Amino acid sequence: PMNAPGQARTTVFTQMSALAMRHNAINLGQGFPDESGPDHIIEAAALAMRDGHNQYPPLAGIPQLRQAIADHQRRFYGLEPDTEDGIVVTAGASEATAAAMLALAGPGDEVIALEPYYDAYKACAAMAGATLVPVRLEAPAYRLDAERLRAAVGPRTRVLLINSPHNPTGTVLEETELAAIAELAVERDLIVVTDEVYEHLVFDDHRHRPLASFPGMWDRTVTISSAGKTFSVTGWKIGWASGPADLIARVKAVKQFLSFASGTPFQYAITEALNTGDDYYRDYVAGYRERRDFLVAGLADLGFTVTEPQGTYFVTTSAAPFGAKDGMEFCLDLPERCGVVAIPNQAFYADPDAPRPEVRFTFCKPLPVLQEGLDRLRRGL
Amino acid sequence: PMNAPGQARTTVFTQMSALAMRHNAINLGQGFPDESGPDHIIEAAALAMRDGHNQYPPLAGIPQLRQAIADHQRRFYGLEPDTEDGIVVTAGASEATAAAMLALAGPGDEVIALEPYYDAYKACAAMAGATLVPVRLEAPAYRLDAERLRAAVGPRTRVLLINSPHNPTGTVLEETELAAIAELAVERDLIVVTDEVYEHLVFDDHRHRPLASFPGMWDRTVTISSAGKTFSVTGWKIGWASGPADLIARVKAVKQFLSFASGTPFQYAITEALNTGDDYYRDYVAGYRERRDFLVAGLADLGFTVTEPQGTYFVTTSAAPFGAKDGMEFCLDLPERCGVVAIPNQAFYADPDAPRPEVRFTFCKPLPVLQEGLDRLRRGL
Ligand SMILES: CSCCC(=O)C(=O)O
Ligand SMILES: CSCCC(=O)C(=O)O
Repeated sequence: PMNAPGQARTTVFTQMSALAMRHNAINLGQGFPDESGPDHIIEAAALAMRDGHNQYPPLAGIPQLRQAIADHQRRFYGLEPDTEDGIVVTAGASEATAAAMLALAGPGDEVIALEPYYDAYKACAAMAGATLVPVRLEAPAYRLDAERLRAAVGPRTRVLLINSPHNPTGTVLEETELAAIAELAVERDLIVVTDEVYEHLVFDDHRHRPLASFPGMWDRTVTISSAGKTFSVTGWKIGWASGPADLIARVKAVKQFLSFASGTPFQYAITEALNTGDDYYRDYVAGYRERRDFLVAGLADLGFTVTEPQGTYFVTTSAAPFGAKDGMEFCLDLPERCGVVAIPNQAFYADPDAPRPEVRFTFCKPLPVLQEGLDRLRRGL
Repeated sequence: PMNAPGQARTTVFTQMSALAMRHNAINLGQGFPDESGPDHIIEAAALAMRDGHNQYPPLAGIPQLRQAIADHQRRFYGLEPDTEDGIVVTAGASEATAAAMLALAGPGDEVIALEPYYDAYKACAAMAGATLVPVRLEAPAYRLDAERLRAAVGPRTRVLLINSPHNPTGTVLEETELAAIAELAVERDLIVVTDEVYEHLVFDDHRHRPLASFPGMWDRTVTISSAGKTFSVTGWKIGWASGPADLIARVKAVKQFLSFASGTPFQYAITEALNTGDDYYRDYVAGYRERRDFLVAGLADLGFTVTEPQGTYFVTTSAAPFGAKDGMEFCLDLPERCGVVAIPNQAFYADPDAPRPEVRFTFCKPLPVLQEGLDRLRRGL
């Protein structure tokens, strides 16, 4: 299914990051911070290597990390995943998503996702032989229309693939929206795969609540998260999937044939990271809130129409005020014109070639970098 | 295709390594060394982390590592992969294999592999919707019968998935065997995926020659290798695939939706590792040759029928002299009976439940550990 010639194209992230390098542009496209996570995490990884932790970890991940993941879920959400059979460590949330799709969907199945959706969702569904069915969050508010979701469920629907905090829009689904998803999943006996990698990036009075915590959901939900965003080590690729033993067993059965098991010294370091005190998580979100406010205000000031994100480190704008109808064209032009890279949201729609004016900027950069990006945009636009 | 309930079982490696832990047994099963690679490689990874190399690497891998991989292939084999479009770094050879299968085979296709074969081959073919067709290397010599291979090629054959040095048998395919494969591939216009992770573990007068170096092969061959075995860092999972731009583009297009890109600091360290002088590679193979000779002699002395391996760090034996008809039963019993873990070769056959007396031991352990393993076997058998 993946071997059609048309599929052999690189993701928009690779394409735009390559442009960033070529034009020495400020990369507000792909979501990775400039600064690494706290020193003590880096040193924990170095220590683990010196202590000889450099061989295959167990398939499910080292026991200490599984314990730390379980403790984290108890501490923040009151969930109680089983450390033996309910958690598998993966090569980032990417691999967890791929393994979950290959494990839980098959030829002829439909997978529902909230559109715009992270581009890997469609590709992973396709690898499994399944079809992705988009349910649109309408610009510019990007709220869930529960009736639309219900109407999309058909006899072939197997999986709801949900993402909140939501990339690229920054929507954090509210209690009522999540409850509607949960009710529907229970009523129609669907499996839910939920990508919650931005769980600690939720601003103001918004709250992240895992879908797995809703009534009837634990037994049907695979929750995906990752350390990359929360601890600013996106290149380490330590993620995980958690849920009931039967679903996790299926995810493991596929995952063992993707990367097998990876990142042994990082697994030790992330064990320490997850066990860090509440201060870390508080400072982390406070720092990003400041950056969000700064970039949102700056972009609005330049003339972009801005949807203020409730979570994630992305902000979706419309470049229509600059006469842009095709965000892809706008973004392909931007590096040379302004020395700035952004991501066209149309890459996150079922038809990525249909022009849309929305453009995503990330604020996972230090304030001076964001300032320089805004200055460059002001000069070039 | 992967979501049939029967598929939700863990690999024989996970199963046997769990038994090793439970019985505090000497693990001569799963192939990972006890000692980590050279200190300067560990320190290079630590330095890369401190230097802030902790975010997503480029999808294809950092340019320095791609250059080192190309230099390595030139230095040892005279090959000239294109560093821009001809190499992709992966989460180990495992991910390279999964991506290559998903990219190059599809529903209805047949993939031919040499049986016994590494268990992931069949699983990866199945993920792609393809069928694995085994061509048996007959015990106890495990040589390729070129006529049998030719007879297995049919109208649906898409890929030859070759592995030399060969796991689990230790066979290193000779020039004439490789030439026969190459001729057939050219004649029938087949894609060849070749897993050469044990390229530096070849003993005595045997030589590793990449299939890609045979006439007509470069343009149709994806070569897979990895740093895990060569530098004794199996838990880092830095592998790669190399070949012509069109095939590598297809592998990349899938790989970007598996783990995306991983192991940033390790990529810096493996760059240094690959550039190490010839001494390292020479000492490495000399050390393993000594271990091989020690284990082969010891197992023969105990009464096992032993096939001396020409390469890899595995030795295939027959436990038939101990009355064992079913290697799986024998290996499930061994940890408790002797405090030693080994792998039943039947896990590497198309029908893993059909009993076979062959058992694989690894010699990737220090001599005193091998000695203790032999002592325990002597006492328990
Ligand atoms: C895996 S590359 C994409 C990183 C990311 O999460 C994003 O930019 O949306
Ligand atoms: C990926 S676990 C298996 C390790 C290995 O290469 C083997 O033991 O054959």
